[in-house]
Amino acid sequence: MYTEKFKINGFMGAAVESGLKKHGGLDFALIYSERECAAAGVFTTNTVKAAPVLISMDRISSGRAAAIVVNAGNANACNGNQGIHDAMRTAELIAAKLEISPDKVLIASTGVIGSRLDMNCIEKSVPGLVKTLHPDGLTDVSRAIMTTDSFSKTGSRTIEIGGKICTICGMAKGAGMIMPNMATMLCFILTDLNIEQTMLNDILKTSVDRTFNRITVDGDTSTNDTVFILSNGTAENSKSLTPHDADKFKTALISLLEDLSRMIVKDGEGATKLVKIEVRGARTPEDAEKAARTIANSNLVKTALFGCDPNWGRIMAALGRSEIIMDERRIKIEIGGVEIVSEGTAVPGNAESEAAAVMKTDEYDLTIDLGMGFASDFILTCDLTHEYININADYRS
Amino acid sequence: MYTEKFKINGFMGAAVESGLKKHGGLDFALIYSERECAAAGVFTTNTVKAAPVLISMDRISSGRAAAIVVNAGNANACNGNQGIHDAMRTAELIAAKLEISPDKVLIASTGVIGSRLDMNCIEKSVPGLVKTLHPDGLTDVSRAIMTTDSFSKTGSRTIEIGGKICTICGMAKGAGMIMPNMATMLCFILTDLNIEQTMLNDILKTSVDRTFNRITVDGDTSTNDTVFILSNGTAENSKSLTPHDADKFKTALISLLEDLSRMIVKDGEGATKLVKIEVRGARTPEDAEKAARTIANSNLVKTALFGCDPNWGRIMAALGRSEIIMDERRIKIEIGGVEIVSEGTAVPGNAESEAAAVMKTDEYDLTIDLGMGFASDFILTCDLTHEYININADYRS
Repeated sequence: MYTEKFKINGFMGAAVESGLKKHGGLDFALIYSERECAAAGVFTTNTVKAAPVLISMDRISSGRAAAIVVNAGNANACNGNQGIHDAMRTAELIAAKLEISPDKVLIASTGVIGSRLDMNCIEKSVPGLVKTLHPDGLTDVSRAIMTTDSFSKTGSRTIEIGGKICTICGMAKGAGMIMPNMATMLCFILTDLNIEQTMLNDILKTSVDRTFNRITVDGDTSTNDTVFILSNGTAENSKSLTPHDADKFKTALISLLEDLSRMIVKDGEGATKLVKIEVRGARTPEDAEKAARTIANSNLVKTALFGCDPNWGRIMAALGRSEIIMDERRIKIEIGGVEIVSEGTAVPGNAESEAAAVMKTDEYDLTIDLGMGFASDFILTCDLTHEYININADYRS
Repeated sequence: MYTEKFKINGFMGAAVESGLKKHGGLDFALIYSERECAAAGVFTTNTVKAAPVLISMDRISSGRAAAIVVNAGNANACNGNQGIHDAMRTAELIAAKLEISPDKVLIASTGVIGSRLDMNCIEKSVPGLVKTLHPDGLTDVSRAIMTTDSFSKTGSRTIEIGGKICTICGMAKGAGMIMPNMATMLCFILTDLNIEQTMLNDILKTSVDRTFNRITVDGDTSTNDTVFILSNGTAENSKSLTPHDADKFKTALISLLEDLSRMIVKDGEGATKLVKIEVRGARTPEDAEKAARTIANSNLVKTALFGCDPNWGRIMAALGRSEIIMDERRIKIEIGGVEIVSEGTAVPGNAESEAAAVMKTDEYDLTIDLGMGFASDFILTCDLTHEYININADYRS
């Protein structure tokens, strides 16, 4: 998934092996823009928030940032005041070397919950990290944030805004667990677009809602999920985007985040299938989302996906407990375009065996029409497999 | 788990092999009381309700019944009007042979969703079923309702009410799947106690809420869950129970249903552990229940139970997404009495390895104190294992 375009005007990256990952490898990374950026972020909705999340939420409210420091191997969550202190200290060390204010340094972590960040690893690695910053270093950052991810997740889009060519690059890590401990989603998006911070913030939130908020691996929400976007304006377009240009940017950003979010589900723990659960004909958008989410998170549905079994009774049972307004006798279900349920009962003939054939492929759509109205929504999900149990039932140490 | 007491004044049972179970075995059963009973029921909250559930909900509203006819191998759910017709017809055939009114026959089914009940199997089996009714036949009924249950689940309690000895017998089937298709919980409770129907109904609902509504195997709610209680009054106690006697009956019933619900979780699909998730110190009873349910249904927690890993970060993450009012810095977590988290952070020393030793046992308590108030609740859960995937990822046919 590595693209040659993973390089962008005015941004530099670096990553080192600090010793935080139990089995070694790049684990401590930095993204830096010499020109201060407009910045926005979206964070986990979990009430238990890791120290770097709490600090970054506060810092991003200024709308400005110049650097992101990130570590893998330790989530720095549930460490009390010590965790806050350690995260602050990390940012301070980086800021001092970069000669910028610490509040311009955003922080993210992924890894084990509840064990203290090893500050020796951090302190000894900061000088080398800052020293190796390089325009070609962003690829290393995308590798350093991987935990049990099986591939690094990056992508880019190029658009023309006000006569200037602008680039948007994104990197993400997904539902890999470090030892294994938790599924943390991190995504950093960098752009040279010149844009007002408030507009950047709005567009980021809309885009995340349509992409990262529409995926699930196991229904558990991490304490560390973080999406940052930094725009340094080096494309030199006029900062006041026309509505048309704002829309162009949003479309490109959604398309990029769609790619990254698909990669995360595809690389979900133990996943062998990527399935889009689409619910149509719902009475309200809320009902559509609730129905899609309940199906996408049902262990019985997810094991049927793994077994390539068009076991639609489980889909009906999930719909029936999803607390939506529905009438089972109006329900239609299609798998990869093959209609297996009509008016809430089985379609006679070969429909089921045709659907089973579709389910042997790696990616397909599962579409439910509720026949109650005109609202629709979707969730990307994966199957529940033996490998998921292997990854998550192993003792951490 | 079979007890010699599984026999009760005035009730008879019978079970036959009708051919509805794919791999053979008893699959069609009948419970009958010559003396008409006060009856009450509790049914699945799933919007998608099987035909027998819809019919029984209607019939139980009269508060009277004399028989329960039940089949395994086919859930008779999602079969539209045909399903209703087939269930009605089954009850009619039984009623005709018993020479009672069809509305006094309650119905329950468990098995595959969405395939038509084979009425040939039913019709040819009714005469033999009614003919073999016998006071010793209830044990056969408890076996006929098993699907992938690995043992039959029965129990009884004896109490003295108004100078008379009364017996309460219960049988249940749990989260076994027929081919595999769904997890259906069925429970039939029989008593010779003489009791007003409204009181019977109230006591049943309270008892189910404290027992069957406090268990989870995989968070999926079946379309067929049914609990029936029939009391035929042959103990000849005075029908107007004193408050003290009503309480005695409720206590015995709760104790019996607790046993049966523990058996269901213990025999949950692929389960190797039975864990009581207890939440104390919640601000409200709702918060306590929500927190306990979220932990009990988290795949990450359940795989950690399987792995005997006191991975408390996953418990914190589950609490944090449970939408309760909490302060992570007040949280205390104990596993089998070993405190592993205090004030939201790790307890230093050997706590974790001691907790890991507890987790190697088959049954233990996981206790969370939120430190926010005085409400508490619990949910019984099991682990998520390879065997769960095996059972549920196999193709049905």
